Amino acid sequence: MKMSNNSMVMDLYELTMSNSYFLCEEARNTKAVFDVFYRKNPNDGGYAVFAGLEQIIEYIENLRFSSEDIEYLKSLNMFDDGFLEYLANFKFKGDIKAVPEGTIVYPNIPLITVTAPLIDAQLIETEILLQVNHQSLIATKANRIIRSARGRGVADFGARRAHNNDAAIYGARAAYIGGVGSTATVKAGQMFNISVTGTMAHSYIMFFENEYEAFKKYAQDYPDNCCFLLDTYDVIKSGVPNAIRVNNEILKPQGKTVKSVRLDSGDLAYLSKKVRKMLDDAGMKDTKIIASNSLDEYTIESLITKQDAKIDAFGVGERLITSKSEPVFGGVYKIAAIIDKDKVIPKIKISENVEKITTPCLKNLYRIYDETGFAIADLLACNNEDIDMSKPYRYIDPKKPWKQRYFENCKAVNLHKDIFKDGKLVYKCPNVNEIRDYVKYQLEKNIWQEEQRFENPHEHYIDFTPDLYEIKMNLLEKLRNEN
Amino acid sequence: MKMSNNSMVMDLYELTMSNSYFLCEEARNTKAVFDVFYRKNPNDGGYAVFAGLEQIIEYIENLRFSSEDIEYLKSLNMFDDGFLEYLANFKFKGDIKAVPEGTIVYPNIPLITVTAPLIDAQLIETEILLQVNHQSLIATKANRIIRSARGRGVADFGARRAHNNDAAIYGARAAYIGGVGSTATVKAGQMFNISVTGTMAHSYIMFFENEYEAFKKYAQDYPDNCCFLLDTYDVIKSGVPNAIRVNNEILKPQGKTVKSVRLDSGDLAYLSKKVRKMLDDAGMKDTKIIASNSLDEYTIESLITKQDAKIDAFGVGERLITSKSEPVFGGVYKIAAIIDKDKVIPKIKISENVEKITTPCLKNLYRIYDETGFAIADLLACNNEDIDMSKPYRYIDPKKPWKQRYFENCKAVNLHKDIFKDGKLVYKCPNVNEIRDYVKYQLEKNIWQEEQRFENPHEHYIDFTPDLYEIKMNLLEKLRNEN
Repeated sequence: MKMSNNSMVMDLYELTMSNSYFLCEEARNTKAVFDVFYRKNPNDGGYAVFAGLEQIIEYIENLRFSSEDIEYLKSLNMFDDGFLEYLANFKFKGDIKAVPEGTIVYPNIPLITVTAPLIDAQLIETEILLQVNHQSLIATKANRIIRSARGRGVADFGARRAHNNDAAIYGARAAYIGGVGSTATVKAGQMFNISVTGTMAHSYIMFFENEYEAFKKYAQDYPDNCCFLLDTYDVIKSGVPNAIRVNNEILKPQGKTVKSVRLDSGDLAYLSKKVRKMLDDAGMKDTKIIASNSLDEYTIESLITKQDAKIDAFGVGERLITSKSEPVFGGVYKIAAIIDKDKVIPKIKISENVEKITTPCLKNLYRIYDETGFAIADLLACNNEDIDMSKPYRYIDPKKPWKQRYFENCKAVNLHKDIFKDGKLVYKCPNVNEIRDYVKYQLEKNIWQEEQRFENPHEHYIDFTPDLYEIKMNLLEKLRNEN
Repeated sequence: MKMSNNSMVMDLYELTMSNSYFLCEEARNTKAVFDVFYRKNPNDGGYAVFAGLEQIIEYIENLRFSSEDIEYLKSLNMFDDGFLEYLANFKFKGDIKAVPEGTIVYPNIPLITVTAPLIDAQLIETEILLQVNHQSLIATKANRIIRSARGRGVADFGARRAHNNDAAIYGARAAYIGGVGSTATVKAGQMFNISVTGTMAHSYIMFFENEYEAFKKYAQDYPDNCCFLLDTYDVIKSGVPNAIRVNNEILKPQGKTVKSVRLDSGDLAYLSKKVRKMLDDAGMKDTKIIASNSLDEYTIESLITKQDAKIDAFGVGERLITSKSEPVFGGVYKIAAIIDKDKVIPKIKISENVEKITTPCLKNLYRIYDETGFAIADLLACNNEDIDMSKPYRYIDPKKPWKQRYFENCKAVNLHKDIFKDGKLVYKCPNVNEIRDYVKYQLEKNIWQEEQRFENPHEHYIDFTPDLYEIKMNLLEKLRNEN
């Protein structure tokens, strides 16, 4: 299933700039290199989970301006007729390389690099950022929640609080990539083959004469998948006794049992312990307890590690689907080089803030693994550099550039995959299960536990090859002399 | 232009409940009344701006389950074949009334009331909440930002940080309703006829030999709409001097001038004052100064009232489009009554938390205006009550129910409009300009300034008719006796 065509979802300045480039012979024939990167992990975490690439690919593959689009742009009286005609026949012609979805990523490394005619590179900026920012945000948040749940199940209940339909759908996708086990959002289940979950609302119970009748009806209709919502009237006095009664009257005679019960309000730790004991005493040891109600990684961690809550699974809604604790993933799209007749001219963006200075050049991104398979650093290199790890490899730590540092007995793996070559798609997207497994694998086998903790995680090293570092320093020197 | 079909954007429990209702003769023939309301204004504000109704109407008008949808649902092995056949032929058959978009609203008043067969009412829950929650969130946030700007222009720059495409598009719509003057998001401009804005990114300036050449090229291509971005190299040493030079060399001879300059980093107050002086000294008094960079109502208010910044307009991105300070609007959908053969049986949802107790009955919502036209309270009434304000009208303040209170010399206006009757759309949606004007009108003529301030705003009174209050109390009494 494809997304609806979102070709016109772009900032107007992509078009004003492109029109200006179109009117300039030199610019029209120049290629540029743009990097997508971000500057800070959400919630001061140690890493982020990259997501959104498949939807970027779909966008670029479907990037077309219809006659209505052209007509609308013409009505703005800003654009050259030749440019509008150019747009009417537009098809993306550049190269794109990127880290695969699910890659564990860090600030200031190029997640995506676009090498394309200036206009092509500019037109796709907004959508690339929008997808990376949204889906990486939710995948990262979901992964934090998953870690806090320590192996217990987590389901996405967020649709009703999502920032519109796409946020529910692609948020569910990203949450699944981050490790969530299922979603309540039917369309996400349908589109991505994610397992779907859901049973009843309070209104269902309130419709029937009483809670017992409601549970009974539900058990008759769904004997294999009973999850009773306990808190419509009173969890302890009414919810649990009715669940036990219906279990004994309807399910037990069929050799079945209530699969789970759900707590959606009140003191979850206190109630879960009471409910667990009542269920156990009734011989319902296999009935799981699910909790929901504005949960996130902080409340879940507290419930499990500090309050000894007897909760087997969590339904997480608004705080996951909006990444409430930090709802912005600050991915940016910055020019790194101009390619003028095959000559690469590195570009740097300076700033009042030193940490906002960009890294120039068409680059490769290597992850450096030690002998145990753990990633000890990422290494940024010029595109044409050979990285030979068969002997000690000297690198520059940009935070301590005066030190002589070497990678020894390490392996360097280029994280970038070719996605588009000359406008042609050359990459096959993995499905969401493969992406999700990849996230899990890296966190088990490649990423230090020290980077995975919530408090003061280890900051991943981002190092430079000596050549790249020298180019950056020379450009800064040149700008210093000019200003 | 219509939204893509989002019929399957729903929580699975809407379908499991509906299937169960379908299998129950009584439930299948029962109607229910559901209210949409929220419990707390975002950011402890005094009100919210209701938005999202037009997209809810489009959703319901287009609500259909395709053969692929039915096939998918069948594959879940949860649903009765008769129910799936019912869904395949489904068309919404209920009544919906709602406050118009742009209405200034308050916690615990019914924004939308659905009276429909149980299944119909349940199937539309998720999408109704999603639209109301997203668009009211952004409209309310935008309105806060507009108030902080005190008449200065505000543009939406948020697309790249939006929670996917719909959040950019419908977020721009909602922001415009809230009072923002333009958007950078081209598709939102195209769909809703909102004015679009945008000029250049840093990359444009970095492409050219130097900043002067970039400004010159832009001035040649857009002599009537020059907004120069000043901070690529150095605002004071480079940006402003180049803007002035290009103004004098290219625009002045044509009798034109630089329309605006934009500051996107650094100390906005300090820089704006310096830039204003330099521009004025160069005779460019009409050139406006625009500021952007993670702005919101708090930073804008500080810039204007405390720092005396010389800023004429603001570009607001991530903090508007995600409502970063509070990214969740907690709208809920609660059953208020069951209609069994035309007999209305009021329903109440109790809770551990007293403020979460719902208000039963099919209700009317009146806004009570005093002789000056200001709204002094909202009044909740049973659907069949006549509200006669020709003489003093006794009401109940639920927070002080022991007091004898009267509305005198007041006017009561029913805020609800009929939207659907027996499944037929009977409402014509206003366009976004009309909605935006309506917001503005209310805030000028109807809503106390005391409700509009950011700090400790006056809490709008939500009162009850004596009849409705009695029904609620009797239901609570009944539940107390049962539990």
